[in-house]
Amino acid sequence: MRLLPHPATADIQLTEVLRALSDPIRMEIAVRLAVRGEITCTEACDDLGVHKSTASHHYRTLREAGVIMSRQEGRLKYISLRRDGLDARFPGLLDAILLAAHVPV
Amino acid sequence: MRLLPHPATADIQLTEVLRALSDPIRMEIAVRLAVRGEITCTEACDDLGVHKSTASHHYRTLREAGVIMSRQEGRLKYISLRRDGLDARFPGLLDAILLAAHVPV
Repeated sequence: MRLLPHPATADIQLTEVLRALSDPIRMEIAVRLAVRGEITCTEACDDLGVHKSTASHHYRTLREAGVIMSRQEGRLKYISLRRDGLDARFPGLLDAILLAAHVPV
Repeated sequence: MRLLPHPATADIQLTEVLRALSDPIRMEIAVRLAVRGEITCTEACDDLGVHKSTASHHYRTLREAGVIMSRQEGRLKYISLRRDGLDARFPGLLDAILLAAHVPV
């Protein structure tokens, strides 16, 4: 298992989190992770109609902003919402955003 | 008094709100409005070190996203947070963002 670089929780910036989620595709990915938990990158972008390289860019943006955790296991990459870090850094923010995106929280 | 065009409350989009607030200067403007209520554009950008045309761009972005209300009175333009619209459209979102930005709500 290989863990890609992630920012420390204390380094997660509010404006970067908002920027990461300001793209409709990235918001949809976050919504899927909120609903389904940890899934593979392939599953996360399934039927969104984005090219693999575009999807990789989105995952990287989300990871570098502190919104998702990403780990490689063999040939598969798994991603999940970084709920603990976000809730610790900005209490209530993720839930408010997910609620606004119509995800039951 | 002249009211500039604003989106209808039902047309406010989550990703557009997040995008508008993903810029540190625009976030600072929103924080000032949250703390001080309606103020002039000059006051909102006072000492932020941005050119007047850049400031105008920021106000327009915030207004078109549904984050602020803007009105012209004579030679002065006043802006305020669009609290009623945002709270109606996305309950709890604005408060969670302001809390994350260290504004008492």
